[in-house]
Amino acid sequence: MKGEVAKEIAKDMREISVAEFFERNKHFLGYENPTKSLLTVVKEAVDNAIEFCCEAMIPPEIKVKVKPLGDNRFRIVVEDNGPGVVEEKIPYAFGKVLYGSRFHVLKQSRSLFGIGIKGACLYAQLTTGKPIKVESSTGKGRIHVYELMIDVTRNEPKIISHTTKENPGGKHGTKVELVVEGRYVSAGHSIPNYLKQTAMINPYAKIIFEGPDGKTVFERVTEEMPPPPKRIKPHPHGVELGVLRRMLFLTRERSLVSFLTKEFCRVGKTTAERVCRQARLPPSAKPQELSLTEIERLYRALQRAKVKAPPTDCLSPIGEKLLIEGLKKEVKPEFAVAVTRPPAVYRGIPFQVEVAVGYGGELPQENCLLFRFANKVPLFYHQGDCVITQAVKEVDWTRYGISQPKGQLPAGPLAILVHFASVWVPFTSEGKQAIAGYPEVLKEIKLALQEAGRKIKRYVRKKERMREMLMRKRMFERYLPVVAESLETLTGKGKEEILKKLEEMIRSREGERK
Amino acid sequence: MKGEVAKEIAKDMREISVAEFFERNKHFLGYENPTKSLLTVVKEAVDNAIEFCCEAMIPPEIKVKVKPLGDNRFRIVVEDNGPGVVEEKIPYAFGKVLYGSRFHVLKQSRSLFGIGIKGACLYAQLTTGKPIKVESSTGKGRIHVYELMIDVTRNEPKIISHTTKENPGGKHGTKVELVVEGRYVSAGHSIPNYLKQTAMINPYAKIIFEGPDGKTVFERVTEEMPPPPKRIKPHPHGVELGVLRRMLFLTRERSLVSFLTKEFCRVGKTTAERVCRQARLPPSAKPQELSLTEIERLYRALQRAKVKAPPTDCLSPIGEKLLIEGLKKEVKPEFAVAVTRPPAVYRGIPFQVEVAVGYGGELPQENCLLFRFANKVPLFYHQGDCVITQAVKEVDWTRYGISQPKGQLPAGPLAILVHFASVWVPFTSEGKQAIAGYPEVLKEIKLALQEAGRKIKRYVRKKERMREMLMRKRMFERYLPVVAESLETLTGKGKEEILKKLEEMIRSREGERK
Repeated sequence: MKGEVAKEIAKDMREISVAEFFERNKHFLGYENPTKSLLTVVKEAVDNAIEFCCEAMIPPEIKVKVKPLGDNRFRIVVEDNGPGVVEEKIPYAFGKVLYGSRFHVLKQSRSLFGIGIKGACLYAQLTTGKPIKVESSTGKGRIHVYELMIDVTRNEPKIISHTTKENPGGKHGTKVELVVEGRYVSAGHSIPNYLKQTAMINPYAKIIFEGPDGKTVFERVTEEMPPPPKRIKPHPHGVELGVLRRMLFLTRERSLVSFLTKEFCRVGKTTAERVCRQARLPPSAKPQELSLTEIERLYRALQRAKVKAPPTDCLSPIGEKLLIEGLKKEVKPEFAVAVTRPPAVYRGIPFQVEVAVGYGGELPQENCLLFRFANKVPLFYHQGDCVITQAVKEVDWTRYGISQPKGQLPAGPLAILVHFASVWVPFTSEGKQAIAGYPEVLKEIKLALQEAGRKIKRYVRKKERMREMLMRKRMFERYLPVVAESLETLTGKGKEEILKKLEEMIRSREGERK
Repeated sequence: MKGEVAKEIAKDMREISVAEFFERNKHFLGYENPTKSLLTVVKEAVDNAIEFCCEAMIPPEIKVKVKPLGDNRFRIVVEDNGPGVVEEKIPYAFGKVLYGSRFHVLKQSRSLFGIGIKGACLYAQLTTGKPIKVESSTGKGRIHVYELMIDVTRNEPKIISHTTKENPGGKHGTKVELVVEGRYVSAGHSIPNYLKQTAMINPYAKIIFEGPDGKTVFERVTEEMPPPPKRIKPHPHGVELGVLRRMLFLTRERSLVSFLTKEFCRVGKTTAERVCRQARLPPSAKPQELSLTEIERLYRALQRAKVKAPPTDCLSPIGEKLLIEGLKKEVKPEFAVAVTRPPAVYRGIPFQVEVAVGYGGELPQENCLLFRFANKVPLFYHQGDCVITQAVKEVDWTRYGISQPKGQLPAGPLAILVHFASVWVPFTSEGKQAIAGYPEVLKEIKLALQEAGRKIKRYVRKKERMREMLMRKRMFERYLPVVAESLETLTGKGKEEILKKLEEMIRSREGERK
């Protein structure tokens, strides 16, 4: 009887492909309602476009079209002037989940998972049955035009059509076109706001948006491209036992010492030999031949080894100047400060936190505005679940003259922008909308916020003092005529004259203070 | 030049296996810090154990051992008396991600993804390099003992050893053993609390826990097992265009009418023929031969078709009586109510919400306690991101005499338990710790909470009235001697006598009210 149940269960057992897994759980990727889904499709295409323009050091010019087709359907077209995709890779880059160029590369990147645009493709075929259309050119030869779907059962691209077009101008770039179900909104978590924030954090990008409400152009603020972040090798303090074991198994190096120096950053020959000694392993040992206990010893020796922090040119921060400019353009505060922290490290992974804080001006009086970014991509959803929000709440803003309900975000008129840059962002899910609460990350964000708080404190306090002074002055002015009258009685001088002199006095005092 | 960048990027492009993806993003599965990781390993093994016992209608007896091995390592052993796993399936059931028995089956289930225990296996080999050990018997033949690892690069099980043992008693069940890194805590989000809540929501389960602090036994409250939830076919209102297309392609049925009646629930011959007519398709059309436009017409006709809601015997609620018992056992309120709502449907998927609310007694005065469950599994983390929390906050508890800070959880002494049961739970991530905010789900949870609120209102108000009466009485008693003295002066009677009569009067009034 029990054996029968086991057999019944066994009959149901099978594998599903990762494409089918994400088709079923499309809300993991950001497709949980029509509004968010439409935004996610645009986001994935735009993030890719900017990412690869930056890699090629081309100031991005991105055209985004969202055209309603009726029946809750939209045609989305995103076109860039990037380096293009090599022809034979196009089907995989757009039609195979977990296929990408970023997995084995440690550097700051907008696309980490090899899921994004494939998720959009899955969503299109799920809701409208239409293939994704990709036009791409690397600047040489003809333009390749593919219509692609994903064979969900096997997670393989299905080429619906493949044609080519002439490319007399030698134009390069990629254009994707999708037809999806969705709902368009123009406020709040909307496509225009997403593009606005994207432009704010990528000031070298020009974004031209044609939506249901007309055309908007987000001009670039600078032509200067940041140097593309460099790739780094894993740091010995960041590797895990299981990964070390696989690295040892897969390496082409013949000896432990050359394995350590070639496969890790910050490990020279001396360090490598010291690590071997500590692990009681011969430097010439063959990496593939270590036993589990030997690997454990090696792992512990690596963890304890004194090595420099990883290089940080794998990171590409925005910088204080552009942060302030971006914030001012977006929300028009009367005063803004920014802090770019030096790079920090957790588990061998370098990361960097930047913060901008704006005060007063056109900011709403009631609520603090919070802008979150990870690797130059705006985070819109799951604010409550993000370590950035946690950090903002945990900082004591009253120290900086800003009121704050206990355990809540501080009160307005305040805008806070936080940018988290890292070679690996611990997103809470594939949808990449919130950062997980690693203690090292939380601490670093709080330090950045506190630094910005100290910078803005003097201004906030001065504003507060000026407000008080103004009130005192108004009060005094109100009583001036009465004072003048009394003085007339006392001194016998004309009250008009006295009033004039008193007013002069106030003006001169004001001048002094200024 | 641009072409060079495209080639460079192309060189980096490759596929990673879903096992490697989750190894890299293990925090998606709940492995983001040592405390949570240890809990997740236990949770995955225990959830599986209870799930398959229930499927076989065996009152579960689960033994859980957590043994510290030093150096932040723990040996975790979870043993059940379930139906066991068929021998040849063991390597896949424990060593291949996205392999499972639940994908193509629509019914309420604790395991949905085919990831859980494989994630634990990945985590073990990543942190300690040790294989998972599985002993299983279906009651017939010998006991099979496997040591398994996952070949991460290929997502295939790697059999380290396979032996058998005699099974003279014909014992059935599964025992898994893992060695992992972690941190053990005994309070808060801890293993003992997880097991306690698991026992509370599965009152027919006996759980024996041997941890670092000794042995605890959670006895079963009932021997009676709920009928195992039935599997259902997809409902025509729940299918998506892309899925319908694949179903048409993969079906063995020869005609559209037989496809519709066999592959969907609630579609009889008459309905099927009506759908075909509405879609302008011949009932005898071959499913595989429909064009995309024809499939679209069929899809729309299915969406519009008037069909009964899906059957709900695929659901297994806990019931009001056991909910109240569980809550009373766990937190000892002085009064508790429960509500099991009738099943509801979203996107063709049946689901059911149950709520229990406890008041007073040993509950903390300050904060409301919130217990969240999905398909009889406790949800511990990401409370802020869960639709259950959102629903509790959005209900106006002041209507029921309970104070509530604006937009927050209500205040104590209050405990709220919410159980969400469904054939498909929209978890926010693979870690299965929070439910996504689908509007239909939110609405139904709020209705259940409001119903419970109305039930508890009378009690809360009465308590409030009694408290007020008590205060009045105390006040009166305090002034009694003064009143008696005044009356003595007025009436000339002795004040002792008057005092006695007044006290008698109060007592009799009290008796009346009672």
